[in-house]
Amino acid sequence: MRNVTAENITDVFTGYLGEDTDPRVREVLTSLARHLHDFTREVSLTHDEWRKALELMQWAGRITTPERNEFVLLSDVMGLSSLVDMVNSKPDVTSSSVLGPFHVSDAPPLAIGGDMRKDFDDEVILVEGHVRDKEGNAIPGATIDIWQTAPNGLYSSQDPDQDIYSFHGLMTADENGRYAFTTVRPVSYTVPSDGPVGEILNAAGRHPWRPSHLHFIVSSEGHRNLVTEVFAADDPYLDQDTVFGVRDDLVMHFVPQPAGSFPEGFELSGKVEGDYSRVDFDFILARE
Amino acid sequence: MRNVTAENITDVFTGYLGEDTDPRVREVLTSLARHLHDFTREVSLTHDEWRKALELMQWAGRITTPERNEFVLLSDVMGLSSLVDMVNSKPDVTSSSVLGPFHVSDAPPLAIGGDMRKDFDDEVILVEGHVRDKEGNAIPGATIDIWQTAPNGLYSSQDPDQDIYSFHGLMTADENGRYAFTTVRPVSYTVPSDGPVGEILNAAGRHPWRPSHLHFIVSSEGHRNLVTEVFAADDPYLDQDTVFGVRDDLVMHFVPQPAGSFPEGFELSGKVEGDYSRVDFDFILARE
Repeated sequence: MRNVTAENITDVFTGYLGEDTDPRVREVLTSLARHLHDFTREVSLTHDEWRKALELMQWAGRITTPERNEFVLLSDVMGLSSLVDMVNSKPDVTSSSVLGPFHVSDAPPLAIGGDMRKDFDDEVILVEGHVRDKEGNAIPGATIDIWQTAPNGLYSSQDPDQDIYSFHGLMTADENGRYAFTTVRPVSYTVPSDGPVGEILNAAGRHPWRPSHLHFIVSSEGHRNLVTEVFAADDPYLDQDTVFGVRDDLVMHFVPQPAGSFPEGFELSGKVEGDYSRVDFDFILARE
Repeated sequence: MRNVTAENITDVFTGYLGEDTDPRVREVLTSLARHLHDFTREVSLTHDEWRKALELMQWAGRITTPERNEFVLLSDVMGLSSLVDMVNSKPDVTSSSVLGPFHVSDAPPLAIGGDMRKDFDDEVILVEGHVRDKEGNAIPGATIDIWQTAPNGLYSSQDPDQDIYSFHGLMTADENGRYAFTTVRPVSYTVPSDGPVGEILNAAGRHPWRPSHLHFIVSSEGHRNLVTEVFAADDPYLDQDTVFGVRDDLVMHFVPQPAGSFPEGFELSGKVEGDYSRVDFDFILARE
């Protein structure tokens, strides 16, 4: 009989796998077991720490609902969600970044030049750009799913005072791949910190803040779906996003524009007399 | 601003930790993040695989109750529970092994020589031994918490036909550290396989069987609590326990005894006329 020991348990684990096991399942499970075993050996994890970790997982299970997924959040703050984005990213195209749990399916159509602000009377931000491929060719008719928090830092699904489609819009780029809309300046906000993830962040001496950003899913037949976020260059949390979402190429600049310069072709044309800011941001999609 | 990349995300994670963070929390979180990141990079985990893993965790959360803890079971089949036992074990004493979820607090007292079988009329097994320290000294009055499945392979909390204390007993060793009881031969059984752990075992081509065993918690003031299991030497699953609990020193031998040889001093003395088997097993405790 084979004596299972702290040294050979990973080999024993691998030996348990069936001969016909799918090679990818074998690869993933073997690597996962080896790294979890290495971790346990490296820190000599105690029974109390192990029990605490399991209690945190049970707690995450109890509070996870369709509206709040604590396991996704745990993956986010451990850097795993972003790392999965990174290891699957393609060179020379716009980086992907965490989807997050606040996307809403079937967002209402938003015409090019449309306004996302609805009843919110904040500073007007004009966001404009093009969807292109790596060679710089326009991708006509690309779909751009846009969402963000209201000025109170809450997404529609978190906020009983907002309609579920508030600050959500689905735009179709024109024949030149151009998109454009007006909105309010997004704000920094905190991830939910009243559950096990909050307890971990607190024990780790970490804050729960995310830098202000706009969410986008850009898609077009024949191209890889781009799930991403674009971050405000002047945000104080830009370098310390608690879910590790920021990339060099995902930073947008709000450029102040003089009063009286608001352009034609927007839902708000003729209605914005004072200052506003504008952001130019292009999306580069990879071929499938 | 620092660009978070697949290469530097572990350093960024460590940089997020507060300066005043407890050193042990820092050590454990840093090691955990590094190993999870290494795993993700090593296998280039896809979004679909990541989503699947999160769905399995959510599923585990939904079915976890006080009676069934799928997170503990997941830790068990990944070898983590046993590895925690191993890295915390002391040399030259009886190995610890997985507690499992079927222990019952406040088991009824069982006198030395008592019978655990109650209404079950199976073959009689006589289990006897001593509790000692590393130097071979008896530990008088040690407490021995004993539990096992009924012959149907079910623990009392899994089986509506059993009283909750069925096959649970709490014995106090005598002045020589001796314990002794009669019971039925334990049976091999399967861990619950109708949840996410079952799905993982199935995908991995693994069976859900555990070799037959008796559970013990042996305790005495001034000594480390010993949570362990003792396995039947002739069990076909001895070398492939799905939760990695078997150790060289945790194997017991059922030695057949001739009819008419049943000893005095047992609840069943005078009642066992035919064959029976006996097991001799000593527990060696570490000092605290």
